[in-house]
Amino acid sequence: MQNLEPTAIADALEQVTTHWTPRVIGQVNDQYIKVAKLLGELVWHAHDDEDEMFLVIYGHLRIQLEGDREIALDPGQFFVVPKGVQHNPVADAEVGIVLIETVTTAHTGTVQTDRRVPLERQLPKD
Amino acid sequence: MQNLEPTAIADALEQVTTHWTPRVIGQVNDQYIKVAKLLGELVWHAHDDEDEMFLVIYGHLRIQLEGDREIALDPGQFFVVPKGVQHNPVADAEVGIVLIETVTTAHTGTVQTDRRVPLERQLPKD
Repeated sequence: MQNLEPTAIADALEQVTTHWTPRVIGQVNDQYIKVAKLLGELVWHAHDDEDEMFLVIYGHLRIQLEGDREIALDPGQFFVVPKGVQHNPVADAEVGIVLIETVTTAHTGTVQTDRRVPLERQLPKD
Repeated sequence: MQNLEPTAIADALEQVTTHWTPRVIGQVNDQYIKVAKLLGELVWHAHDDEDEMFLVIYGHLRIQLEGDREIALDPGQFFVVPKGVQHNPVADAEVGIVLIETVTTAHTGTVQTDRRVPLERQLPKD
């Protein structure tokens, strides 16, 4: 996808109406730029071959990591979950984020869950 | 580089003391996450094989594009300069940005200029 207009992240987030449903808003090389709203927790999973970048726009995000670790992110902070690391994002109240991940990344890793949203539903309709 | 701490973009920008000298603050897959402070204009250039993402943190950035186009970016807005497109970033006053680009991208493309900063100088010293 090639977009020759600037994108306002806040405006893109406003278009998101469903939690845990990432929406693709751009692409840089082989990475998608997505926005998502999170509330509650997702599911423990890992992406075997792909890092995943979380940048918080509003709210407070906890990312539980294997080995009993936890990362806490406030607005303007980001964290890259390294490939192969089990993680579980938790939003105690609604969080708005930017996600950057490889175009082929399944957002729940290899875990089958009703939380998984197929990529077709993450892409813009136009 | 693998960083198991969150990164605050504003704090990372505060560490930058020289204009047009990107500083690598993270990596997601084959892309570097960088911060930079811009003032004045860079130089017309293109990256033949790589897109380049500009996200404005503070200030107002103009990106002149070939074909007499110009993109204007305010804080929270991003633009991806597609591969092969001639562009010239212009900051009439200081701008703080996040750049995301392939680890191999030379920030002035194939243009030799005293503005070019070798990647070794963009990487953290520790």
